[in-house]
Amino acid sequence: MTLIKSLNNQDEFVGFYLLKELELKQTNVTPSKDYFDIVLSDSSGQLPAKYWDVTQADKETFFPMGLVKVQGVVQTYRDKLQIKIIRIRKAQEEDGVALTDFIRSAPIRPIDLIYTIKQVLESINDEEIKTIVSFCVKKVEEKLMHYPAAKTHHHAYFAGLAYHIVRMLEIGEFICKQRPFLNADLMKAGIILHDIAKPEEMIAQLGIVTDYSVEGKLIGHISMASNWITEAAIRSDIDLQSDRVLALQHLVLSHHNLGEWGSPVQPQMAEAVALHHIDSLDAKLQMVEDALDTTPETESWTPLIRGLENKPIYRTKLL
Amino acid sequence: MTLIKSLNNQDEFVGFYLLKELELKQTNVTPSKDYFDIVLSDSSGQLPAKYWDVTQADKETFFPMGLVKVQGVVQTYRDKLQIKIIRIRKAQEEDGVALTDFIRSAPIRPIDLIYTIKQVLESINDEEIKTIVSFCVKKVEEKLMHYPAAKTHHHAYFAGLAYHIVRMLEIGEFICKQRPFLNADLMKAGIILHDIAKPEEMIAQLGIVTDYSVEGKLIGHISMASNWITEAAIRSDIDLQSDRVLALQHLVLSHHNLGEWGSPVQPQMAEAVALHHIDSLDAKLQMVEDALDTTPETESWTPLIRGLENKPIYRTKLL
Amino acid sequence: MTLIKSLNNQDEFVGFYLLKELELKQTNVTPSKDYFDIVLSDSSGQLPAKYWDVTQADKETFFPMGLVKVQGVVQTYRDKLQIKIIRIRKAQEEDGVALTDFIRSAPIRPIDLIYTIKQVLESINDEEIKTIVSFCVKKVEEKLMHYPAAKTHHHAYFAGLAYHIVRMLEIGEFICKQRPFLNADLMKAGIILHDIAKPEEMIAQLGIVTDYSVEGKLIGHISMASNWITEAAIRSDIDLQSDRVLALQHLVLSHHNLGEWGSPVQPQMAEAVALHHIDSLDAKLQMVEDALDTTPETESWTPLIRGLENKPIYRTKLL
Amino acid sequence: MTLIKSLNNQDEFVGFYLLKELELKQTNVTPSKDYFDIVLSDSSGQLPAKYWDVTQADKETFFPMGLVKVQGVVQTYRDKLQIKIIRIRKAQEEDGVALTDFIRSAPIRPIDLIYTIKQVLESINDEEIKTIVSFCVKKVEEKLMHYPAAKTHHHAYFAGLAYHIVRMLEIGEFICKQRPFLNADLMKAGIILHDIAKPEEMIAQLGIVTDYSVEGKLIGHISMASNWITEAAIRSDIDLQSDRVLALQHLVLSHHNLGEWGSPVQPQMAEAVALHHIDSLDAKLQMVEDALDTTPETESWTPLIRGLENKPIYRTKLL
Amino acid sequence: MTLIKSLNNQDEFVGFYLLKELELKQTNVTPSKDYFDIVLSDSSGQLPAKYWDVTQADKETFFPMGLVKVQGVVQTYRDKLQIKIIRIRKAQEEDGVALTDFIRSAPIRPIDLIYTIKQVLESINDEEIKTIVSFCVKKVEEKLMHYPAAKTHHHAYFAGLAYHIVRMLEIGEFICKQRPFLNADLMKAGIILHDIAKPEEMIAQLGIVTDYSVEGKLIGHISMASNWITEAAIRSDIDLQSDRVLALQHLVLSHHNLGEWGSPVQPQMAEAVALHHIDSLDAKLQMVEDALDTTPETESWTPLIRGLENKPIYRTKLL
Amino acid sequence: MTLIKSLNNQDEFVGFYLLKELELKQTNVTPSKDYFDIVLSDSSGQLPAKYWDVTQADKETFFPMGLVKVQGVVQTYRDKLQIKIIRIRKAQEEDGVALTDFIRSAPIRPIDLIYTIKQVLESINDEEIKTIVSFCVKKVEEKLMHYPAAKTHHHAYFAGLAYHIVRMLEIGEFICKQRPFLNADLMKAGIILHDIAKPEEMIAQLGIVTDYSVEGKLIGHISMASNWITEAAIRSDIDLQSDRVLALQHLVLSHHNLGEWGSPVQPQMAEAVALHHIDSLDAKLQMVEDALDTTPETESWTPLIRGLENKPIYRTKLL
Repeated sequence: MTLIKSLNNQDEFVGFYLLKELELKQTNVTPSKDYFDIVLSDSSGQLPAKYWDVTQADKETFFPMGLVKVQGVVQTYRDKLQIKIIRIRKAQEEDGVALTDFIRSAPIRPIDLIYTIKQVLESINDEEIKTIVSFCVKKVEEKLMHYPAAKTHHHAYFAGLAYHIVRMLEIGEFICKQRPFLNADLMKAGIILHDIAKPEEMIAQLGIVTDYSVEGKLIGHISMASNWITEAAIRSDIDLQSDRVLALQHLVLSHHNLGEWGSPVQPQMAEAVALHHIDSLDAKLQMVEDALDTTPETESWTPLIRGLENKPIYRTKLL
Repeated sequence: MTLIKSLNNQDEFVGFYLLKELELKQTNVTPSKDYFDIVLSDSSGQLPAKYWDVTQADKETFFPMGLVKVQGVVQTYRDKLQIKIIRIRKAQEEDGVALTDFIRSAPIRPIDLIYTIKQVLESINDEEIKTIVSFCVKKVEEKLMHYPAAKTHHHAYFAGLAYHIVRMLEIGEFICKQRPFLNADLMKAGIILHDIAKPEEMIAQLGIVTDYSVEGKLIGHISMASNWITEAAIRSDIDLQSDRVLALQHLVLSHHNLGEWGSPVQPQMAEAVALHHIDSLDAKLQMVEDALDTTPETESWTPLIRGLENKPIYRTKLL
Repeated sequence: MTLIKSLNNQDEFVGFYLLKELELKQTNVTPSKDYFDIVLSDSSGQLPAKYWDVTQADKETFFPMGLVKVQGVVQTYRDKLQIKIIRIRKAQEEDGVALTDFIRSAPIRPIDLIYTIKQVLESINDEEIKTIVSFCVKKVEEKLMHYPAAKTHHHAYFAGLAYHIVRMLEIGEFICKQRPFLNADLMKAGIILHDIAKPEEMIAQLGIVTDYSVEGKLIGHISMASNWITEAAIRSDIDLQSDRVLALQHLVLSHHNLGEWGSPVQPQMAEAVALHHIDSLDAKLQMVEDALDTTPETESWTPLIRGLENKPIYRTKLL
Repeated sequence: MTLIKSLNNQDEFVGFYLLKELELKQTNVTPSKDYFDIVLSDSSGQLPAKYWDVTQADKETFFPMGLVKVQGVVQTYRDKLQIKIIRIRKAQEEDGVALTDFIRSAPIRPIDLIYTIKQVLESINDEEIKTIVSFCVKKVEEKLMHYPAAKTHHHAYFAGLAYHIVRMLEIGEFICKQRPFLNADLMKAGIILHDIAKPEEMIAQLGIVTDYSVEGKLIGHISMASNWITEAAIRSDIDLQSDRVLALQHLVLSHHNLGEWGSPVQPQMAEAVALHHIDSLDAKLQMVEDALDTTPETESWTPLIRGLENKPIYRTKLL
Repeated sequence: MTLIKSLNNQDEFVGFYLLKELELKQTNVTPSKDYFDIVLSDSSGQLPAKYWDVTQADKETFFPMGLVKVQGVVQTYRDKLQIKIIRIRKAQEEDGVALTDFIRSAPIRPIDLIYTIKQVLESINDEEIKTIVSFCVKKVEEKLMHYPAAKTHHHAYFAGLAYHIVRMLEIGEFICKQRPFLNADLMKAGIILHDIAKPEEMIAQLGIVTDYSVEGKLIGHISMASNWITEAAIRSDIDLQSDRVLALQHLVLSHHNLGEWGSPVQPQMAEAVALHHIDSLDAKLQMVEDALDTTPETESWTPLIRGLENKPIYRTKLL
Repeated sequence: MTLIKSLNNQDEFVGFYLLKELELKQTNVTPSKDYFDIVLSDSSGQLPAKYWDVTQADKETFFPMGLVKVQGVVQTYRDKLQIKIIRIRKAQEEDGVALTDFIRSAPIRPIDLIYTIKQVLESINDEEIKTIVSFCVKKVEEKLMHYPAAKTHHHAYFAGLAYHIVRMLEIGEFICKQRPFLNADLMKAGIILHDIAKPEEMIAQLGIVTDYSVEGKLIGHISMASNWITEAAIRSDIDLQSDRVLALQHLVLSHHNLGEWGSPVQPQMAEAVALHHIDSLDAKLQMVEDALDTTPETESWTPLIRGLENKPIYRTKLL
C-alpha cells in the first residue's frame, strides 16, 4: 500500500485511503457528465483526485470521511500532482483497515497526552488556581482527546492541541527551573488554559477543522477562555477580584502578545511574557518539523510555510 | 474673579482656584530653599504655578485638591504661561465657593444623565437583555455620576462618561429610526455597555483620572465588561450560549473595531458596526467641541489634538 | 419568474434576466466549439452562466446589457452556483419587461432623491456657498439621476450616489441640531460636494461601473472636486482666497481622513471631522444592509465584506 | 569675526550676528530678574544665547531679525554649546554689515536662479503648457527670489526653493537626453510647478519659515498648485479637459508618490515617475551636502538627519 | 513573421518562436488525451499556447528553450490571448534563425556593456578600491554578459544587469559632476558592486531567471557581495578594517535603503545615499520604458506594474 | 553603606560610589558659578547628582569612572530622585573598595561563563564548524569577559553578553533533546556566533556601552559576523560554498527574523527558526527579571520596559 507522500507522477497504484472531501460536479461538454472532485488522504498527506465516470449507484455509495480502496494513476495538473481514479470501492470490514490509521495524528497517544496534562494539573500547589484550571479542562475534556490546535496554522491534526500543551509544559518546566523567579503554578495554569477554548471555537472531526462556531467568530477563543475563568470562579465561590483570577485571565488574554494578533492586552506579568514566547517557540518549531516530515526526503526545500513569514525551510545536508 | 482661560502674560490677579497638584521642592541655590510646584485649575482650564517662599506652616496647610485664594502674576516660561504666586491662603466657608464649581464638568447635570440612561434601559423590550444591562449598570452606578470617559482622550471631565453615553443614545435612536433593520434593543444595550467597565479600569476623582487600576491594566475595560456580562447571565440564570449573551459580548468586545485599537474581535453584527461608528463620531466631535471651547476666541487654531491625528482645528470665520 | 437570489443547486427555471456580461469563447476539445461565457443578473443579484452550443445566429443576436428570456438549470462549479443555459432568446416588446426592473437600484426614486438634494441646496443661507455648490451639482446633474457611489465598495447600484448623499444629509441635519456649534451651511455643502466628481471619475451604465475615466485615474474625484470649486469661484467672481472657498475645498480634500485613504490633507475644521465620520457611518451601514438583503434569509452569515475589514456579518436571531 | 560654526566651549569672542530669536523671560530667584533668551545666527549656523542683565533700555532696543554686535563667552549647557552674552549693542550703519551676509543662502545668486528658470520656461515648445507654467510662476515670482523649499526638511534657506528647482532642471535635462522617450516639455513643466505653491503655503522671512498659512494648512501646496493650474487654464481659455491640463495636474498631484506622503494619486505617467525620483534624489543629496557643510571638519559624523531615516552621515576619510 | 506583440484575437499565423516553457498534460475527458501546455515567446513578448494532439514522436522531439516553427490561431481564454497550435516543427539549420534573435535583450550589445564597465573600472584612481572591484567583477564576468537584473521586477532580460549598471554609471558620472563633494571612485565602485552577486543569487538562462540558488535564498545577494569584498581584501592583503573596505561594504549593504527592503543597515555615507536613489531612478524608469515598449501603441494604458505601486502607466498624447 | 536602590527622598547618607558620569557646568546666576553635573552609581542602580561649589582643585581631581566617597542628601527634582552632594573625595587604597564591586554584573563570574562557552564549543562534533566558531570567538575572547549584550535593551551590564550566550546554550540543549531532528552542532554554533561581533560593534567599558564603533554603524554586528565566518573559512581553507559555511552565515544573518529588525534574510532552516525564538525568549525574560530586581520590593509595577512593547511588569502577590 503506497503512502500518499510517496506517490510520484505517472505512478499506478492500488491502496486504501480516506475520502477526505467529495463533491459531485458536471463536465463542460455537452451533454455534461457527472464526476467526483475528491481529496484522498492518509496519515502521510493528501492529494486531489478525479473520478470521471460517476454512476447513480456511486452517488449513493460514497460520502466524505469514509475509507475507500482505490486503483489510480498519478498525473500532473498545473504543476501539482493529481490522482485519476480508475476504480474505487468502499472499504469493508474484512479489509481490516481502521479510520484512525488514515489520519494525521500527534506522535503520542491522546490518552497519554491527557494523562500528562492531568498530572501537571494535579501538581499545581495553589488550590484556587487548580480549581479554576480543572473547571475549564472539564468543559472540553472529551474534545481534548482529538482536537487539533488550529485549522491549518500549526498542530493541525488529531490530538494536536493536547500535544501542543504537553510539549509547552515540558519547556515551561525547564524554564521555571532555569529562572526560579517564575511562579510554576501560574506557568502550568497559563499553558493549560491559553488555548483551552479552541475546541469550542472550532468545529472539527478526526483532527480536521471544518469551520468556526458562531461563538468562535463573535467572541473568539481568547475571550471565551477569559469568560470561562469568570464562570469557574463564580461557580466555586472564588473572589473575582483576587490576584489569582486576574493573573489567570491576564495570562490567557495576553498570550497573543499584540493587539493585531488578537490580544486585547499585552503581557505585563513575568509568566505572561514567558507564556507567549514558549507558545511561539513550540508552534513555530512544530510547523518546521511537520513541514520537513511531509516533504519527500528528495526535496531540499519544503513548501512555503504561512506561519513562518511565508518562507520555505531548507533541509541542510551536513552529515 | 479671573478664569484661568482668560489669564494673559504679565496679568496680576486675585481669585479662587483649585490646587489640583502640589509638590514640595528645593531650589538649586546654596543653601537651597523650599518651594511649591503647583498646578492651579478652574472649570476653564489649568496653569502651572510656583510659590517660592514656603514656610513650615505652609507645608502643613496646603494639600492637593483643596480650594485656595491666590494673588499672583502671570509670567512666561519656555513659551508657556506660568503663575508666580505672591500670596496664597485656603478658602474658607465664608468665601462661599464650592469645589464642584472649579472642575470641568459635562454640560448636563449628572443626575439628569443617569435618569436618561435609566429611562432608555427601561425601554429595552427584551427582558434578558434588560436584566444583563441593569446588572452591569448597578456595578458602577455611583461612579457613573462623576466618572470621566477617559484620562485625556475625550470627555475627560466630571460625568464625562455618562454624558458620552447619553449623546450616543440620541444618535443611536436616530440611526435606528433611519435604518429600521437595526435592532433597537441591541443598539441601546451596546451603547450603555460599551464603556461600562471604565469606572473600574480607571481611578478618578472629581472627573480627573489619576491612574489605572491593576485590573484595568491587566484585563482592560473591554474584557472586564465581557466578564461582567458572563457574571450577569450566571447570576440571573440566563443561558450563557444564547444569542443574546453572545450578541452583547460581541458588541462590547468589537467596539474598538481593530485589534491594534484593543478589540479582540472585529464587528460582525449590524449593530456592532453601528456602535463603533457612533462611538467614534461622538468622541471625535466632542474632542473638537471641547478644544474650541477651551481655546481663547481670539485664537484661530486650537492646540494639536491627539485623537485627531494630532491635528489642530481651525475656527472658520464665515458669519 | 424566479429571482436570481432564490435559485438553488439543481433548480430548473424559466425567466427574464439581464445579460450583464457576455463573451464568446472556445472549448478545449478538438475541434473546439464556440460557447458564451455569460453573467445573468436581475435586481436581486447575479450568477455566472454558460451557453454551450452557440450558433452563428446567436453571435449576431446577443449583446451585453440586453434583456433575455432564459430556460436553464443551476449547477455547482468550484463550490459556487452556475447556470447552464438550455434555451435563450431576446426579450420582445410584447414580453412587457423593462430594463430598469432588472437592475439593483436605490430604494427611493432618483427624481425624489434629486428633489431632496435640491431642497437642501436651496436652504443654504450663505449665497456664495450656495452658488458654488449649485455650480458643481449642475456639472453632473443628469448623471446624479443614476450613478452609483462606487464600483463595488458601497452603494454600487442605480442612483446609489444620490441615495448616499440624501441619507448623509439626514444624519448631518440631526448632528447639527444635536451640536449647534457646527455650521449647518458648511455641513450641507460638504455632504453634497464630497463625492460630487465621482460621476466624472467613473464610467457607469445602469448603475454599473465599467471603468474609471482617464481624468479619474490621473486626478481622482477628490482633486477634481477641488478644481471644480476653484472653477465655480472664478466663474462667479468669488474671492478664491476667501474662508468660504478654503472651507469648501478643505471639506472635500480631507473627507477620506488619511493620506493612505486618498486625502492630501487631514480634517482640520469641525465640519470636516463630522463629514468624514458621517460619510463613514452611512457607507458602512449601507454595506451591512445591502449584504444582509442580498443574502438568502436561510443563511446566518453574509459573504465577506471588503469594506468591513473583510469580515462577514452575522444575522442575529433575537426575536 | 568668528563664525558661529567655529565657536568652541570656553571661547571668548566679539562679532556681529543676527538676533534670530529673542524672548524676554524672568529668572526663578526672588525677586526674579529679567533676561533675554536669544538665538544668535550667521550664515554658518546658530547657537542659543542668554543675556542676563536686561535693562529697560535693552527691552526697547533689541528685536528679532536685527543685526547686533556681541561680546560673549561659550559655555556648555546639557551637552550643548550656549553663549553667555557679556555685552551687546545694535549694529550701526558705520559697521558696514548687511543682513543678507548673516543668513544661510543658496550658493547661487537668486537673480541667476530666476534667470535660469525663466530660460527653461521659455524653451518649452508647447504653447499651452508654457502659458500655464508662466501663469503659476508669476503668482510667486517675487517670493521665488528668496523663499526656502521647506521649513527644516531640505533647502531650508534663502532662495532654497529656486535653487532646488534649478538643480532638478539640470538632472531632468540629463535624464531626458539619456531616455528620449520622456517628453522634455512635461519634464520641465513638472519640475518648475511641483513645489510652486510652497511660497503661499509657508510664511517665511529671510529664508526662514516661521509658520504655515491658513491656506497651506487647510489645502496644502499640492492641491493649491493643482487649483492654480485650473485657474491658469480658465484665465487663458485652455480646455480644462485637455491632456495637457490633466498631465500638468497629474505631475503636481502625484509627485510625493504615496498617499501617506501627501499625494492623492500615485504617478501614472512616465514623466511623473521621473519627477518624483528626481525630486527625491536632489532633496536627499542636498540634505547630505548641507549636513556635511555645517558640521565641523573635525567631526566624523553629522547630526541625525530627519529626512534620511533619522540617520547621521559619516565623513569618509579616503584621500 | 508576426511578432508575438502584434498578434490579435482570431489571427491565423505562421512563424518561428522560442518554446520558452513546455509541459506534458492530460485532458479531463475519458479516455484522457495528452497535450502540451506551452509558452511561446520572441523578443517582443510571450503568449500561452496549447497543442492538443500530441503524438509519441512529439514527446521525444520538443523540449523547452528550443526554436520551433508554428502554425497557429489566436483565441481568447479568460480574457487573455492564447494560441491554439495547428502545426509545429523544430527549427532547422536551413531556416537560418538564431536563438538570440528570439529573446528580449538589452538595447546595447553585451560586449559593449562589459567594455564600458571595464573602462569605468580602470578609471578608478584608488588602487585598493580598483583591486576589490576587479576581484568581484571577475567572479561573474562571464555571467555578466547575459544575466538579467531581476526575475521580473526590472531589466528582466538578456544582459539586463550589465545594462542597468551602465545606465547607472552614466547618471552617477553626471551627479558627481553636479555635486563635486561626492567621491567619484566610491560612486563608480558602489554602482558596479551593488548587484554584483545577483548572477550567483539567481539561476538564469538566456536572460530568464528560472530559480534562486540555495546561497541566494539563504544569504541573499547583498550579504554575498559583502562577503566577496571581505574575500577580495584578504586575497589581496588589504586591511579589512580600512575605511575603503568599510565604505565598499556599506555601499553594498545599504543600497536597498530600508530593512524591510533587505538592507541590514541604512545609508550613512553621501555616496550611499546617492547610490540608492540612482538605483531606484534607473530601475523605475526602465520599468516604465519597458512597459510602454511592450504595450501595443493603440493602448492608452500599460498593464499594472508591480514595482510602481501596482499602477499602470498612461501614454500621454501631447504631440 | 547605602545602596543607590535603597535611597529615599530626604535621606542623608555617606558611602562609596562610582562616578559614572561627570560634567563641568555653570549656573545661570551672575556671576555664574561652576558646578558638577554627576551620575553616581553602584551595582544596584544609579542616580543623578549635583555638586554645587566646585573649586579649581576639584576640577583637577575628579574624572568619570573613578570611585569616590560621598556625603549627600537625597532630593526630588521633576518627580525624580537626585542627590545633592555635600562632601566628596576620591577613594583611596586604604578604603579597600574595588571598582568591580560597584558595577552591575552578570550573576555568574565571567571566567566561568567563558569556560562554559568553551566547553560547549569543544563538544561540537563537526570539525569545520568547530574551527569557524573558534576563529570567531578568538577575535573577541578578551572582550567577551566583560562586554554587555546591548546598550540598554537587555543584559546591559558587565559580562552580559557571555551570560546571554550561556543561558541560551542551556535552552538550546534542552530543545535539541526535546526535538532530535534539530542539528545540535548547528544549534550550538548558531547560539555562540549570533551576537559574536557585538564587542566590535559597540564601545564599552565596565559593562557600559558609551558608543557604537564606525564599523558597528556602517556594517552592523550581523553583517560583521557574516564577514568573520567568510574570513575564518578562507584562513582555514574551508570551502566557502559548502553547506556548513552557508548554514552558519544563514544562522547569523537571519537571527533577527525580519528585515525591519535588521536581518537581510528570514530564517529558512530549522535551527535558524529555533535560534531566533531562543534568543527572543532569553532576552525578554532577562529584561523582566532585571526590571523586577532593580525595582524596590514595595513597588507593584516596574518602570516601562522598551523591549516589551513599552509595558511595565506587575509583581503578582500570590503566595
